[in-house]
Amino acid sequence: MKIVIDTLGGDNSPSAMVKGAISAQKESDFDIALVGRRADIEEVLSTLEYDSGRVEIVDAEDEIDCNEPPVEAIKKKPNSSIVKAVKMLKEDEEAKALVSSGSTGAVLTAAVLLTKRIAGVNRPALSPILPTMKGNGAMLLDCGANVDCKPINLVQFAVMGSVYMREVLKVENPRVALLSNGVEDNKGCALTKEAFALLKEEKSINFVGNMEAREILSGDYDVIVTDGFAGNIALKTIEGTAKCITKTLKDVIKDSKSAMFGSLFMKKAFRNLKDFLDYNKRGGAVFLGMQQVLVKAHGAANEESFKNAVLQAYGASKLDISDKIKEGLEQLGGENR
Amino acid sequence: MKIVIDTLGGDNSPSAMVKGAISAQKESDFDIALVGRRADIEEVLSTLEYDSGRVEIVDAEDEIDCNEPPVEAIKKKPNSSIVKAVKMLKEDEEAKALVSSGSTGAVLTAAVLLTKRIAGVNRPALSPILPTMKGNGAMLLDCGANVDCKPINLVQFAVMGSVYMREVLKVENPRVALLSNGVEDNKGCALTKEAFALLKEEKSINFVGNMEAREILSGDYDVIVTDGFAGNIALKTIEGTAKCITKTLKDVIKDSKSAMFGSLFMKKAFRNLKDFLDYNKRGGAVFLGMQQVLVKAHGAANEESFKNAVLQAYGASKLDISDKIKEGLEQLGGENR
Repeated sequence: MKIVIDTLGGDNSPSAMVKGAISAQKESDFDIALVGRRADIEEVLSTLEYDSGRVEIVDAEDEIDCNEPPVEAIKKKPNSSIVKAVKMLKEDEEAKALVSSGSTGAVLTAAVLLTKRIAGVNRPALSPILPTMKGNGAMLLDCGANVDCKPINLVQFAVMGSVYMREVLKVENPRVALLSNGVEDNKGCALTKEAFALLKEEKSINFVGNMEAREILSGDYDVIVTDGFAGNIALKTIEGTAKCITKTLKDVIKDSKSAMFGSLFMKKAFRNLKDFLDYNKRGGAVFLGMQQVLVKAHGAANEESFKNAVLQAYGASKLDISDKIKEGLEQLGGENR
Repeated sequence: MKIVIDTLGGDNSPSAMVKGAISAQKESDFDIALVGRRADIEEVLSTLEYDSGRVEIVDAEDEIDCNEPPVEAIKKKPNSSIVKAVKMLKEDEEAKALVSSGSTGAVLTAAVLLTKRIAGVNRPALSPILPTMKGNGAMLLDCGANVDCKPINLVQFAVMGSVYMREVLKVENPRVALLSNGVEDNKGCALTKEAFALLKEEKSINFVGNMEAREILSGDYDVIVTDGFAGNIALKTIEGTAKCITKTLKDVIKDSKSAMFGSLFMKKAFRNLKDFLDYNKRGGAVFLGMQQVLVKAHGAANEESFKNAVLQAYGASKLDISDKIKEGLEQLGGENR
């Protein structure tokens, strides 16, 4: 198995990507293709110990940044690392997974334009796994790949998320909830009301009903299904709130000498809090629904978080997650068929 | 001026409502109508000093709870405090504002069914004011009154929010942003793309473009416009994330003797953090777009936060906010007319 690494487009490119990938390889068993500027990649590699027979470099000069409209950028930049990496995923039979810290829009668009979806998937979904108060992870999907969804898309998200949580994270009978404005069955907007009716009939998933956004991090749900617009808002609201609270905490400590003194004894506790909040450390967001595994690591990923994203990609590929999603979708009944 | 107080339906009913209202009255100049169970209200009043000539009791035996479907509950319970309070707002010419800690759905539904909207308002909006990192407040609307919106509704929300922030909170030229999945002009779902085009043409508001949800608490925007479904998700995600982080902070402190010791010096700092997070303390969510002022205090409101909600209702009524919203809507041009 080969994992394709896009070394450009991240805040810490290419160093964190090259180091993270080599580090992940040492803990596991796969080949690596590093896509990006050859000289820069070689410079980082020269500082590392690695098995040169299992690492190849694919030269790609161009970078696509977050501010470029994805479709145009992909057409205009055939030599960008994202386009070359995605093409390799399509053309190299050994290549089973791709990890990138680059522009989310460009990665998803390149994947959709240049590679294939799993048979039966109408819309792939960007699917991060969030930390929860109970210590388990909750997959929230879609988080922005599809801003306008149909009810059937949400049903497919439910299946894909259930398969991932069951197969990769070994969650028995994952609880699927529909993100809504209240827990009652009759709550929701036009889209979620229709999706609710479809999900309720679906025997192959463990649908537990509507949920409110204040429960996303509760740990009471394993798969949280929503359209890409609302999911994006939920995900970024979590980020923004966490940032606001940690900043406020710093401010209130700075305001008081007594608190400053007290905080000296709490460095480890604060570090644990920070680790908890930094869900990117635990890997990236999977782009579920494509034939190969795509993991979008955070743009600010450091070596450790990029390494975890690579290990996540390896784990999902090794378990043939795409085949299992295909099987899951084949079990859908009635209108969802 | 008279302010109508719904004393039932809150976690601390009727004590926090009666005490909070009397306390607010002492700081200002208005009459009070306390709606609820007479004996219970009298019992609380007997412990307080107040001007009995300016306080009346309206007997209402029934309570509507959050789990009752609002429309049915309002029809079935004509003697509920919510229905009686809203009717009083409609029928008593002196009554200019209503404050309730009861079921949000029931309060909004009763208001829509039994009182009148401001001329030109298609959909009233539930509009809380959130704390921000810069210390100013940001109004987020709609937060759940209208789960399915049309673009014109969002334009009206922008106007109503701008008028409120300018008149009541004295924000000069309030910055209006459209909640979206990216800051670029072309980002958004079908609804927000259409709303963007309308908002951009509108000269009477200071529309600054799309914004991401991670900036809701940044303090860079004064009025954040969205449909009630997405707004509800954003609001409740903030609540849930704050809860998750404070719980995690407690856990990491408990896990370490050193941190426990340090935390003894930080009690005031933690209390300041808690105060910051508890935006309900500063008042309630205004239901903008109705002829009279409606303030929905939090279900868990205590005496202090209920008092602040009453003062907020008084301030908005005194400034004739509804007339000013009407004028604001009359200034809309083109398709928004």
